[in-house]
Amino acid sequence: MISWPVFSPISVCMPFPCEDIMSYEIIAIGDELLLGSTLNTTSHTIARKLFEAGWICRRITTVGDDTTDIKDVLLQAIERTDFIILTGGLGPTTDDITSEAAAHAMNLPLTINGDVLNTLHAHNGFSQRIKEKLASMPFGSVPLKPEGDASGYLLIHGDTPLFFLPGVPGQAVALLQEKVIPWLQNHLPAQAVYYRVMRTFGLPETEINRLVSAASIPADITIGYYPVFPEVLISILYKRQKNESADAGSGGHGIEDALSFWQRLVSLLDRHVICEGDETLEAVVGNLLLQKGATVATAESCTGGLIASRITSIAGSSQWFERGVITYSNQAKMDLLKVRQEILEQFGAVSEQTAIQMAKGLRRLAKTDYALAVTGIAGPTGGSPEKPIGTVYIALATPQQTSCQRFLFSRSENNHRPLTRTSIQQLTAETALDWLRISLQYGAHIYSSRYTG
Amino acid sequence: MISWPVFSPISVCMPFPCEDIMSYEIIAIGDELLLGSTLNTTSHTIARKLFEAGWICRRITTVGDDTTDIKDVLLQAIERTDFIILTGGLGPTTDDITSEAAAHAMNLPLTINGDVLNTLHAHNGFSQRIKEKLASMPFGSVPLKPEGDASGYLLIHGDTPLFFLPGVPGQAVALLQEKVIPWLQNHLPAQAVYYRVMRTFGLPETEINRLVSAASIPADITIGYYPVFPEVLISILYKRQKNESADAGSGGHGIEDALSFWQRLVSLLDRHVICEGDETLEAVVGNLLLQKGATVATAESCTGGLIASRITSIAGSSQWFERGVITYSNQAKMDLLKVRQEILEQFGAVSEQTAIQMAKGLRRLAKTDYALAVTGIAGPTGGSPEKPIGTVYIALATPQQTSCQRFLFSRSENNHRPLTRTSIQQLTAETALDWLRISLQYGAHIYSSRYTG
Repeated sequence: MISWPVFSPISVCMPFPCEDIMSYEIIAIGDELLLGSTLNTTSHTIARKLFEAGWICRRITTVGDDTTDIKDVLLQAIERTDFIILTGGLGPTTDDITSEAAAHAMNLPLTINGDVLNTLHAHNGFSQRIKEKLASMPFGSVPLKPEGDASGYLLIHGDTPLFFLPGVPGQAVALLQEKVIPWLQNHLPAQAVYYRVMRTFGLPETEINRLVSAASIPADITIGYYPVFPEVLISILYKRQKNESADAGSGGHGIEDALSFWQRLVSLLDRHVICEGDETLEAVVGNLLLQKGATVATAESCTGGLIASRITSIAGSSQWFERGVITYSNQAKMDLLKVRQEILEQFGAVSEQTAIQMAKGLRRLAKTDYALAVTGIAGPTGGSPEKPIGTVYIALATPQQTSCQRFLFSRSENNHRPLTRTSIQQLTAETALDWLRISLQYGAHIYSSRYTG
Repeated sequence: MISWPVFSPISVCMPFPCEDIMSYEIIAIGDELLLGSTLNTTSHTIARKLFEAGWICRRITTVGDDTTDIKDVLLQAIERTDFIILTGGLGPTTDDITSEAAAHAMNLPLTINGDVLNTLHAHNGFSQRIKEKLASMPFGSVPLKPEGDASGYLLIHGDTPLFFLPGVPGQAVALLQEKVIPWLQNHLPAQAVYYRVMRTFGLPETEINRLVSAASIPADITIGYYPVFPEVLISILYKRQKNESADAGSGGHGIEDALSFWQRLVSLLDRHVICEGDETLEAVVGNLLLQKGATVATAESCTGGLIASRITSIAGSSQWFERGVITYSNQAKMDLLKVRQEILEQFGAVSEQTAIQMAKGLRRLAKTDYALAVTGIAGPTGGSPEKPIGTVYIALATPQQTSCQRFLFSRSENNHRPLTRTSIQQLTAETALDWLRISLQYGAHIYSSRYTG
């Protein structure tokens, strides 16, 4: 049994163009973001954290380290929006020009903040010139954390707060959580809406859309589908009406409708729902193992450690994960899992018989409750007419029995392109972990997937 | 010895605001990108691929699934730029409204394309309504790949080409490479510049900046520093002068200066250069092992399979990777690596003695040339005053000897925040692989790092 968490309201603004609703924008600055050298994870994380705190981002604009472009986008955003988060270009190197460009845009002198400079004095790695650069900000700015190494700052232009944060994800998010969000909560009230997300695996986006559309969506609910390979996230967004109570328990009709629609969705998608919320599959599996006091071990061939790496990314995983082996060679399969040489010779390393022996051997040797084994062909070479690239055998040994299924991860779901090596590895790891989840949650030995075959 | 690849010229436009230079923008559409549910990898990859083909992106704007916002940003971008790539919102679900919004913005009717509709007829998973939605585009648009499932389309507005691509990374990038780039190469000449990137590990960005600045940068060269945890990428960008030859070999002074500056950089940063180019560390290590005909095995504790997973992400890795073990429990360390119980009891699982026995045992059992072993405390719990969180022992067994070093991955480099579990795992995996690289490349037994201690 899984327990459904209570439908939890959070306060957010709407992303839709209503003039009376608070909105904000993110401006990300850095040539590396435009050249494609660096993935813009900072903006992504800021959008997510602010969303969780109650504000929906209206626009994210990425520009290079260029004074004219920064000025142009900053002045336009000020016209459109209630507050702005800028990230990037505050660092020590010569291509960091955000403070200078912002001062230029606002027609303000660039000044050195004494508090920030004092903090930096203790830093032996920086020259005086670099310290002064790091402590520079447009006149009138207030450092967000003068005692920190990456202080960031707030400049209020007219009535628009501009938050300047570093581009490095960890530094930006720390300042956001410690300084920006508390400031916003004190100064800019968020509008109340209900938002909820679930993570699914195993149904293509179109099939989910068909099922959901047939469930008669209430008019004031917005549904989102977000494929994040190999999963699909589904969200519902409901904006509370002005005359409704803020308390979900005693809420008006609208909230009750949203709640019951959510529950209909969950029943409809059934076992494909990994979790209500966006916990990762490995976190859900870890939690189920912990609840049962059960342990698991993994034997991987084509996934090369990806399954173990996902399981052990969760803090506390030593309580449920005993060992993993990556048996790339036949010798390793014989040494570490006691797969018999005759089996390997007769059926091959990629076969049901080998997968079953891997799982059984592993469970016996590791003395765990569960053992997961995978063997397959991730490509780009090594396929044959009988076992084409994407052929994978997954075996699951449980306290009751050992089952094996053959999968063919050959084609992506919505188009007909062959999957890459990386996609086959990801889909194999996801399927193995999902089978373990289904087994733990429903006691099922058989796992059905559209890739079975 | 590594051989330095020839300085290879590619043709690109400049990102700087020169009116006479060709520039383009990306518009990414989707609520999920603004809510922080989905990381915008599609725009990132498009920017990178187009950059490699010769065009530098001037701006990336992300907006939600909102007709007014899409119209607003599209019309503004048309004023500023030479061509536009739009991604997202072309899918089958009800929140996909890009084609409708673009038709509205351009004042064009939305029409169903017969060729695309015909291709979709074969697709049994879609209803007629969905097929018609997928085949809809503003009047005058030309499908990029009518025979594909996700065809995308080109609409020329005035003299500005607008390319509409799906939001799913694989589909968008395939269309970009097969259709968009060839079209651009035929229609819009790119401007020639030289660009080169190297991947480094082990020096903080500020230290690199200090070293590079002291090397007297030629005036017409732009240097970029892109920290991608735990590495730093360094790029140089040199724009060829109009009267210079396009051939690097017989190039003018400027190109020779760029070439020799690059070589100075490489010598300066020495062993910290993982590669000239942006090959991953695991690809470089795989290549070195392949060249030597050598093999490796891994024994991991705190990294939980991350090292093996990185090694086996490379196609062909079965030629150099024999096995990996993830020995989370003491029993697994004894079973799979023959670590002696007394050692574990006397010194603990996280100790130099255990790490050395892990590496030695693994190399003997796996019969490989090299064996890497790591044992440490990734946190968030499990630290002690003697062995705080972030304490990691890495041992490397080579045909000559087995060495072990203690590292303390406790604080990030530029600020003083403690590292997270994930960062400690990443830094440990990177350090272990980098030590193997240094050993293969220079025959060095000792690995020096600022985290040694």
